[in-house]
Amino acid sequence: MSDKTPVPAGFVGVAGNIGIKDPQDDFFAVVSQAPAVVSAVFTLSRFAGPSVRLSREAAADGRARGVTVIARNANVATGQIGTADAREVQEGVARAAGVEPDDILIASTGVIGRPYPMDRVRSYLAGLPAEFPPADLDRSAAAMMTTDTHPKIATAKVGGATLTGIAKGVGMIEPNMATMLTWFFTDAELEQPVLDEVFRRVVDKTFNALSIDTDTSTSDSAAILANGLAGPVDVGEFEAALHEVALKLVRMIASDGEGAGKLIEVRVTGARDDAQAKRIGKAVVNSPLVKTAVHGADPNWGRVAMAVGKCSDETDVFPENVRIVFGDVETFPTEATDETLERAAQHMKGDEVVISVDLGIADGAFTVYGCDLTEGYIRINADYTT
Amino acid sequence: MSDKTPVPAGFVGVAGNIGIKDPQDDFFAVVSQAPAVVSAVFTLSRFAGPSVRLSREAAADGRARGVTVIARNANVATGQIGTADAREVQEGVARAAGVEPDDILIASTGVIGRPYPMDRVRSYLAGLPAEFPPADLDRSAAAMMTTDTHPKIATAKVGGATLTGIAKGVGMIEPNMATMLTWFFTDAELEQPVLDEVFRRVVDKTFNALSIDTDTSTSDSAAILANGLAGPVDVGEFEAALHEVALKLVRMIASDGEGAGKLIEVRVTGARDDAQAKRIGKAVVNSPLVKTAVHGADPNWGRVAMAVGKCSDETDVFPENVRIVFGDVETFPTEATDETLERAAQHMKGDEVVISVDLGIADGAFTVYGCDLTEGYIRINADYTT
Repeated sequence: MSDKTPVPAGFVGVAGNIGIKDPQDDFFAVVSQAPAVVSAVFTLSRFAGPSVRLSREAAADGRARGVTVIARNANVATGQIGTADAREVQEGVARAAGVEPDDILIASTGVIGRPYPMDRVRSYLAGLPAEFPPADLDRSAAAMMTTDTHPKIATAKVGGATLTGIAKGVGMIEPNMATMLTWFFTDAELEQPVLDEVFRRVVDKTFNALSIDTDTSTSDSAAILANGLAGPVDVGEFEAALHEVALKLVRMIASDGEGAGKLIEVRVTGARDDAQAKRIGKAVVNSPLVKTAVHGADPNWGRVAMAVGKCSDETDVFPENVRIVFGDVETFPTEATDETLERAAQHMKGDEVVISVDLGIADGAFTVYGCDLTEGYIRINADYTT
Repeated sequence: MSDKTPVPAGFVGVAGNIGIKDPQDDFFAVVSQAPAVVSAVFTLSRFAGPSVRLSREAAADGRARGVTVIARNANVATGQIGTADAREVQEGVARAAGVEPDDILIASTGVIGRPYPMDRVRSYLAGLPAEFPPADLDRSAAAMMTTDTHPKIATAKVGGATLTGIAKGVGMIEPNMATMLTWFFTDAELEQPVLDEVFRRVVDKTFNALSIDTDTSTSDSAAILANGLAGPVDVGEFEAALHEVALKLVRMIASDGEGAGKLIEVRVTGARDDAQAKRIGKAVVNSPLVKTAVHGADPNWGRVAMAVGKCSDETDVFPENVRIVFGDVETFPTEATDETLERAAQHMKGDEVVISVDLGIADGAFTVYGCDLTEGYIRINADYTT
């Protein structure tokens, strides 16, 4: 709380409580004082909400000025009213910030199927300050939480530039191309096409490698805004920093998965190609039987074999070439002994469980992230709302 | 217990305890005294065990004499020893029954990665009676249980013939073409190609419409043996009876899903074709968020919309054409009121929850079956074994 996370130059903003559901912060807007380039990716859901549609349009020209989020209501499946409401929020924030509505990305997260309480939204927007103070990204990260237990924020320096990312998301996470809500702000100067290429590559290896519960949200959004105020940076260095910050956020999200007690990292190697490694990794990290075994710190490697095996389209996978390792303990094909199983169980009692699967085909590799499945997930979701 | 389920003419067998793990029955063999035709389908898992491979070969010529099952050990991922052991069981049963080993289907279910305790298996097989008594299918159904809470058996008459099916399975169930273990015995007379066609069609609409937890077993097997002793039957009537018996078993399995409290039936209509309806139905019935909402009797239809929406390849699905109904209560697009949500919640408090989704495209339809996700599933699977 005391140490604020660094904010890149030129980003101002507000965060506060509209009163969507309770007295906690449920709103933020972060806006760049200078024009910025943007790259953004969104959910592929057929039930994508109006916020996703408006943000997609806002980002389409590669330029944007800011991001605004309302939490505790997803504004999804709310029909034409939902679209009008989202547009009104976008316009209200843009007016206060003195920018064009089409330069504001908007997102919303929470329960599906209920309109915003627009009376409260309107009076909140009307009260926004004429001049935004410097952005408080820690508070902004907190303002978008739903069942998150803590805000997620990470930062890095790239030459003279600052890169800070915030994220939220604990359930309904199986990004197909983007993920929950995550926003990156930087004062680095990058050409938009370069930023776009770098961002998509990083998202694919980080947020798209994450799965909490196989359920893809209707609202997944990820974007990065670069306003260039800190001048040009080395693109390779920038990509490395972005990857590092994104991976930190992904690990925070996985560890904070609904009811989760442990981060699961599944490293697949020896695949035909990276895409196959990713498919197999997803099958393992999403398997309820693997997830519950991790919860119970049970080195039941047979369930990993099962999860690999259920990828029945991967006809070049043969059990006799597969190797399964928990931590650094091989459990297959080397016959597991009581001693090795005990060592594997010890590894699984930690906060981070690493399961390595080598397919013995070629050198494709991919690492995916997830979490264990616990009674807590059931409790949270059996009566989340309605 | 008192009323035994009818057994078709000519089927003899034994059931008992080998001592694989505990003193409960863990073995059965059912053999037809007359030659029988067979149709069988098996898991598509790349880690399919030796029992599946031997049974596939045994059924390949369309003729078989019997089925044997060992429970409490899957004999999967046990290497060449596992194959030799399975073959020895197949041969031991065949010898006792006086038939060819290649006419005995074999299956095994339980923990993966441990060899059978062959000393006990051998002494048990050596003690099999020289002549098998009439089959006891109730006891056989019980002998293959693992975490099942009760045996699953159903029967029907077709003209003068009897058809009885038994099944086991509570977890690791997402059949891709077959399912857990299920065996059908009949004294009806059918040509093998006809039996095969009918069986595959029925399996596709019943066992392949079932999903407990998306995890496909390494051992899924389903077969039907018809020995013809009751003479010919009307094929249409036979298919109807087989469908009825299979569906009863499917509903028993779903209701008895690990930790499950409720059967979930998802009826998808208005799809482009039946296959699309099945994909959407599976997405809904497998969604952890839908499953936990059902557990909590929470008519959170937004999660059903999410699950439909995450089928992002179904580009002809548009929210404005979708209809979502819990029981007989429409919750979308008709705006749900407190009164309708209360009625939907009442429906969800029952043992069987029906969720209907109409896609408004064409007339494709498919119904799938599953169960809720509860703390019990976590408890059972967090420390099942090792």
